[in-house]
Amino acid sequence: MKEVTYGLDIGGTNSVIGIVDREGQILAEDTVSTRKFPVVEDFVETCFSMMKKLEKSLDEEVKIMGIGIGAPNANYYNGTIEHPPNLVWEGIIPLADMFKKYYDVPVVLTNDANAAAMGEMIFGGAKGMKHFIEYTLGTGLGSGIVINGKILYGHTGFAGEIGHIIMKPGGRDCGCGRQGCLENYASATGLARTTLELLSKRRDESKLRKIPSNELNSKLVAEAAKEGDPIALESFDYTGKILALSIANAVAFSSPEAIFLSGGLSNAGDLIFKPTRKYMDETLQIIFKGTVKLLLSEIPENKGAIMGASALAWNEILNK
Amino acid sequence: MKEVTYGLDIGGTNSVIGIVDREGQILAEDTVSTRKFPVVEDFVETCFSMMKKLEKSLDEEVKIMGIGIGAPNANYYNGTIEHPPNLVWEGIIPLADMFKKYYDVPVVLTNDANAAAMGEMIFGGAKGMKHFIEYTLGTGLGSGIVINGKILYGHTGFAGEIGHIIMKPGGRDCGCGRQGCLENYASATGLARTTLELLSKRRDESKLRKIPSNELNSKLVAEAAKEGDPIALESFDYTGKILALSIANAVAFSSPEAIFLSGGLSNAGDLIFKPTRKYMDETLQIIFKGTVKLLLSEIPENKGAIMGASALAWNEILNK
Repeated sequence: MKEVTYGLDIGGTNSVIGIVDREGQILAEDTVSTRKFPVVEDFVETCFSMMKKLEKSLDEEVKIMGIGIGAPNANYYNGTIEHPPNLVWEGIIPLADMFKKYYDVPVVLTNDANAAAMGEMIFGGAKGMKHFIEYTLGTGLGSGIVINGKILYGHTGFAGEIGHIIMKPGGRDCGCGRQGCLENYASATGLARTTLELLSKRRDESKLRKIPSNELNSKLVAEAAKEGDPIALESFDYTGKILALSIANAVAFSSPEAIFLSGGLSNAGDLIFKPTRKYMDETLQIIFKGTVKLLLSEIPENKGAIMGASALAWNEILNK
Repeated sequence: MKEVTYGLDIGGTNSVIGIVDREGQILAEDTVSTRKFPVVEDFVETCFSMMKKLEKSLDEEVKIMGIGIGAPNANYYNGTIEHPPNLVWEGIIPLADMFKKYYDVPVVLTNDANAAAMGEMIFGGAKGMKHFIEYTLGTGLGSGIVINGKILYGHTGFAGEIGHIIMKPGGRDCGCGRQGCLENYASATGLARTTLELLSKRRDESKLRKIPSNELNSKLVAEAAKEGDPIALESFDYTGKILALSIANAVAFSSPEAIFLSGGLSNAGDLIFKPTRKYMDETLQIIFKGTVKLLLSEIPENKGAIMGASALAWNEILNK
């Protein structure tokens, strides 16, 4: 009987669930609408039905060892989701306990960025690393910090919010209600906002001027940059600069051996890695120069959510 | 026979050494000139003679359980001091091994800020805390970060350099060769530099205008502030603001339950605590509001160096 875990990633619109083996292979997966279930118990029951079907769909028998869940506002210590603004459920939801009613196995909850870091450690480029940080550069900027081989949860369970480190006091408005947080600069959305700012500041020609600001996104900026558009290139340069400053500061704090980038913006490749590396060389404190690598995540983006969530469960089992 | 450890704090000019019991009582102590010993082996031999004398001076027999050493550029992992710019010794000095020739006990080395944090955890206000940070606000700004009850050393052994987090790119020149690091703002020296900047910016009367800039220090600024001097008061306010920003960012990173302040500037009491608390309330991300206390170190300043170093040894022994 093959030992497997479940990886469940809960999103505001949809959730994905998959059966994952110790090597990170997703043996079966399915998607469920999160929004359709205003009552969380119904959601969990539906997940359970799906899970049974997934197990039956396999050629071999499996033994479920644990369930890992990536979810917004997840509290690792309590196994709860707490006041999630982007989910249909309200208050404090004891999700781990709800799943334990169906499966008597370890159920581990944390946010998606911590799950991504765990995926990197168990299945990806951070195998064997004790100190690293994963930056997920999507709509926002999430981060999972690994210290001594463990995700950093801190006193509250909510540590690892590098995206909400204030880089520019009084700067760009942030969804958290404050201003100048990193994620408004170093993320797919941040890149688009930087591009807008540059379009307002500079006078040179750019095909990006033809795009309405609410349609401007990191993909379009990347395409323009590849064609040599000067605004787009400066936009990536500026994004790399502020990302490198954040990395230099994170290194002064926790001295990791690697920083991994994942998420939409990381797909821009050299456009983002080159300036980030250049400014890291300039900005790192001398004692840390040459001690930290900047790496692309080795987890395929379309599998990251399930693999990361599953890795949470594997990690819990392996460290028992 | 009473179990004790040694605490040794190595400074550029002088070093202090003391015998410390499990409760943090310094049973005997002495001072030795560091500068007088250009050959490190001679320094260690002299320390050994001093230690034997200290032991003889006691009323009761003691058992030496370990030696803790606080030193600049100390590498915890290797037990070495590495290229210390402010010491008379050069290169990589295997100090732990040198002391082990005289005492066959655990010998632990780290920098003085990590030692201060350890002193706080073993003997001071952080007893029983698993996640906290100690800021030592002296000439510079040192920091010791405790995660899951352990000092954070990171991949290199040099983690915890919050004083060298860049708060203002292109800002004040720093001793590390870069610009805008926190310690040039939030430290005794930083306060004096802020005062100078305000004296240049503002036009109002201040008794601080009579003091040559190289004689301006945090004590004089504190005295003036107590008399209501507006420049001095604004100087403390600004220092508290940037310190609070640093704390809010550190909380986003590691979510500690407390921040301890120690060192010269912390003695200014309400002058520094009040603005720092006020700006922390303004600056902390909502999910962390009310989760972190700002506290004065409970280790007496004149005993901190020996107690901190000794605590390193006690911690090593207790966690064996």
